[in-house]
Amino acid sequence: MSKKELKRIDLKSIQNPDFLKSMNHRELELLSDDIRHYILESVSKNGGHLSSNLGVVEATIALCKVFDFKKDKIIFDVGHQSYTYKILTGRSLDNLRQKDGVSGYQKMSESSYDHFEAGHSSTSISVANGMAIARDLNKEKYNIIAFIGDSALQNGLALEALNNLAQSNHKVIIVVNDNEMSISKPVGGLSSVFRRFSTSSFYRKGKSAARKIFGWNRFGRWLLSGFGAFKNWFKRKVINMTLFDNLGYSVIGPIDGHYFRQLENAFNRAKKINNSVVVHIKTVKGKGYPYAEDDELGDWHGVSSFNIDTGELASKDGTVSWSEQYKLLLKHEMSVNDKIVTIVPATGHGSALDSLFDIYPKRMIDVGISEEHAFTLAGGLAVSGYHPVVSIYSTFLQRSYDELSHDVARLNLDMTILIDRAGLVGSDGDTHQGIYDEAFLYTIPNVTITMASRASEALSLMKESLCHHGVFAIRYPREFFMNKEDGVKKIPYGSWKVELEGSKTAIISAGPLTLKLKSKLIELNKDVTLFNAIYLRPLDESKLLSLLDYSKIIIYNPYATKEGFASAVKSFLIDHNYKGEVITKTVPTTFVKHASIEEQRQEFNLTIDDIIDSL
Amino acid sequence: MSKKELKRIDLKSIQNPDFLKSMNHRELELLSDDIRHYILESVSKNGGHLSSNLGVVEATIALCKVFDFKKDKIIFDVGHQSYTYKILTGRSLDNLRQKDGVSGYQKMSESSYDHFEAGHSSTSISVANGMAIARDLNKEKYNIIAFIGDSALQNGLALEALNNLAQSNHKVIIVVNDNEMSISKPVGGLSSVFRRFSTSSFYRKGKSAARKIFGWNRFGRWLLSGFGAFKNWFKRKVINMTLFDNLGYSVIGPIDGHYFRQLENAFNRAKKINNSVVVHIKTVKGKGYPYAEDDELGDWHGVSSFNIDTGELASKDGTVSWSEQYKLLLKHEMSVNDKIVTIVPATGHGSALDSLFDIYPKRMIDVGISEEHAFTLAGGLAVSGYHPVVSIYSTFLQRSYDELSHDVARLNLDMTILIDRAGLVGSDGDTHQGIYDEAFLYTIPNVTITMASRASEALSLMKESLCHHGVFAIRYPREFFMNKEDGVKKIPYGSWKVELEGSKTAIISAGPLTLKLKSKLIELNKDVTLFNAIYLRPLDESKLLSLLDYSKIIIYNPYATKEGFASAVKSFLIDHNYKGEVITKTVPTTFVKHASIEEQRQEFNLTIDDIIDSL
Repeated sequence: MSKKELKRIDLKSIQNPDFLKSMNHRELELLSDDIRHYILESVSKNGGHLSSNLGVVEATIALCKVFDFKKDKIIFDVGHQSYTYKILTGRSLDNLRQKDGVSGYQKMSESSYDHFEAGHSSTSISVANGMAIARDLNKEKYNIIAFIGDSALQNGLALEALNNLAQSNHKVIIVVNDNEMSISKPVGGLSSVFRRFSTSSFYRKGKSAARKIFGWNRFGRWLLSGFGAFKNWFKRKVINMTLFDNLGYSVIGPIDGHYFRQLENAFNRAKKINNSVVVHIKTVKGKGYPYAEDDELGDWHGVSSFNIDTGELASKDGTVSWSEQYKLLLKHEMSVNDKIVTIVPATGHGSALDSLFDIYPKRMIDVGISEEHAFTLAGGLAVSGYHPVVSIYSTFLQRSYDELSHDVARLNLDMTILIDRAGLVGSDGDTHQGIYDEAFLYTIPNVTITMASRASEALSLMKESLCHHGVFAIRYPREFFMNKEDGVKKIPYGSWKVELEGSKTAIISAGPLTLKLKSKLIELNKDVTLFNAIYLRPLDESKLLSLLDYSKIIIYNPYATKEGFASAVKSFLIDHNYKGEVITKTVPTTFVKHASIEEQRQEFNLTIDDIIDSL
Repeated sequence: MSKKELKRIDLKSIQNPDFLKSMNHRELELLSDDIRHYILESVSKNGGHLSSNLGVVEATIALCKVFDFKKDKIIFDVGHQSYTYKILTGRSLDNLRQKDGVSGYQKMSESSYDHFEAGHSSTSISVANGMAIARDLNKEKYNIIAFIGDSALQNGLALEALNNLAQSNHKVIIVVNDNEMSISKPVGGLSSVFRRFSTSSFYRKGKSAARKIFGWNRFGRWLLSGFGAFKNWFKRKVINMTLFDNLGYSVIGPIDGHYFRQLENAFNRAKKINNSVVVHIKTVKGKGYPYAEDDELGDWHGVSSFNIDTGELASKDGTVSWSEQYKLLLKHEMSVNDKIVTIVPATGHGSALDSLFDIYPKRMIDVGISEEHAFTLAGGLAVSGYHPVVSIYSTFLQRSYDELSHDVARLNLDMTILIDRAGLVGSDGDTHQGIYDEAFLYTIPNVTITMASRASEALSLMKESLCHHGVFAIRYPREFFMNKEDGVKKIPYGSWKVELEGSKTAIISAGPLTLKLKSKLIELNKDVTLFNAIYLRPLDESKLLSLLDYSKIIIYNPYATKEGFASAVKSFLIDHNYKGEVITKTVPTTFVKHASIEEQRQEFNLTIDDIIDSL
């Protein structure tokens, strides 16, 4: 059969995956090529997740062919690898992640084929477990699939779910997408459970363990140098027992996740088994796009727009990202202070910290997607005289609330938190907004909360965070800024900066937009006092007291909701019998959908013009 | 050697564990008896954790003999099983958990032998991992031990740590105390990893899996009905491979945790191994006290004072606990609404829900110490048309912040959270205070927050929580109340109750103390408006607006810190140009040490008399 005779599908005409049933494997391969090309095109234009989506094209097609997602349900863990699924269920990627376009994740409002939504990793098994309980209580019959990557499995939530589901009678099919990738690198013991040691490294390991155990006995040593290693080897290679076997799951695979025959067979077998089953598929990250296939660091995990032919990212016109800026500051502090240990929960690449791993291999620790462990580990380091720095995205810090409180703040231990992507995040949408951390950190005692508006303040905060103030959190947005020389000065702990002095009306502003606001106020020659609230907690009480006679105070924090800093300022004012007017300009306490950051600010009347209007 | 010749130690004279080095096993057994008796006496008088402490007497003695805790470090997971360690390091249990007495957990301020503090479970491996990194960076040599129970290992934090530590070069000795117990019952697949299946159940399982996989082929079926089962049996019984082997740990044991010779040998071996090692010990819960040994449900896990001879708990003088009250309400709702599924993270016994597991075996789910999974599981149920109820202690809800937000509230799914032990908790101390949840729930959109002051309100809230208001949280304290008939009336959603009408001065009060305050105000004939703020969120705005002309408003919430409800009320008042005085009476945003609840309230000027004084 020549290529000409193969059925070829116009991707834009797809309504639902039913057409797949009648397609043969060679036609499916052709379809895969077309889908891959379309994904590449859309992501190069709009930005988005690339490698993970290119890796699961065949697996998604095979799932849609074997199962009937009109009644069966599939939960893509994180959801950022669901582009093929979106295409097969009739959605266009043309406006991917843009305002009113499709989301970068599963989204129930987009399609009746989506049954849940996520953006944080490792939720799928729990969700599927809940759905399976509901299905069985209803005495219904359909399949529920959790599709999860190997890295996401290292998170505590997924492990709790795996443990809990193992002994329930509610069947879930877990498809483990083993692509030897994670947001950064795969880490931890689990990765070896998948990948297994080479026989030689094993043998070495086995022998060394045996030596230690039986070291006191020459005969024992002789016996076990051979037997111990053999037993270990046998355990792992021949018996090939995985975590899943341990927990009691049926296991199918590993199979080639780009090979339709194997995929279909495996999924059909999984369908027939009565209890929960793990289908272990191996895929190639970035499959089909050489730049992404060769990517070791995760450069092509989540990207902004780029040139398909050259693989070059769109340029950034002389600005620098806040992530990059804090990387430089951290790098300097680590070079002069060998008590600093930096911990990242798989976000090292996203926060521009890659190069530090080469420079400080012993003091840079990637714990994988283990946000809870990151902070309790930090507690262990801090109590031992080290100064831990955890670099984490605002939205993922939500996972560490208890560990930050119970294992660090409660003991008043010193640490720095670099909170990347604080504030509105734009196209990642409601699962990734960084607008809540300020408010929830406010509920934990012994936590300092800060945000710089310019590079010199960032430097000052980075240094101050190392000076025994307990937990010291530094927020910064997912944005770029012009790094101008501005005369570095140390900012005393807890102190705000007076940017403009006026009378009657004051603006208390937080974060980088403060500088734009200042320019505009000068340009318009407004009689306004402008405080730059570098310290969001504690409050600069003396500066606040100086405002008690003002007739109007505007609190401008476009990087957070009202429950944190803004409420604290208002609470302080009312406690001190302030009688004037107060206007609060913060992000509303809602979940904010994807659009550009600028569009989101406009929606909430948080632009500089809005502030000028409210004077 | 007769008993007379054995060396016997006066427990009160112990300064440090050095004396153990010269003791023989029979003397150690005698010491164990004495310690057990002392623990029993102290706990029967002061309340505390019993079963876990009775179970680890020998293991703790053996650890203190083999290791030198002047330089070696031990982290007891949770810390509630550290009583023997306290005794051996020179601390008296006479005033256990009382104000100024020793804490029920490890406490650095108590002794230089304590190196960390916990009260939430599953932190020890992360902490030990952090300490081990610090030790190795310092090029120091000493042992670090994480002592953890089998149930605590099921938590995501411990699993993340286990995974992460496995591939690091920093040696930690993990002692797994396998007592087949948990706060409630052990659940999940991991428990089978420890306990292993009986050969017959195995054989059944193996055969059934093999049948499903090879069911299409008669020859395959024949072949595998034998071989598959054999392989499974071989895997689990002969090779005896556990999760720890999978992850690459050296494993010693299982050994008898009450047998000194085995314990000492095992610990000495663990000392000599170069990499991280798991010592698996088996102990008997409640060892030595028949009532506790026979305990299936966890009655003797944490107890208040009791009679040693009869095992009877001190009586409760006609009052009922709020836990018991909400159990009755939940029981009723589950009986009339088969869409309710209740999830508990190992707190079923503590929250008095045991009996519901017998009545509704399919709709009561104990997920073990998996607070994160509990909420994402709830999300899966809610999206499938069920109404999940999660019953959890306030302090453990901290672990679910992200899952509650990302997997339930963000999707505006309906669920009820029964937040037990909200407010000050007394003798459990700073690790267990339930004073933060109100404030952190305030930072999450779509969450209703409530607290009843009397039984009729509790009933109304329980029913309202089922009426599609998104996430509906009901807080209640760890206290008892007199359940009087008070004319049940439905309270409209979001509505406060006017308890007293006065002029000029108003008190907005939350929770059960409102009733005591009301009585006192009537008794003193005070001209005061008293609002009972049953809904802490949303605010009853019309009632608040009615106060704008008042000269004084007192916000009285002795069950939470100021960042939640109190700040919201103040923010509302300032937004509406309230010009009068506001006094805030809440728990300060600090970590609160152990003492009785009454003592804690006195310390913070939160008694009824304090409120009267501030009028």
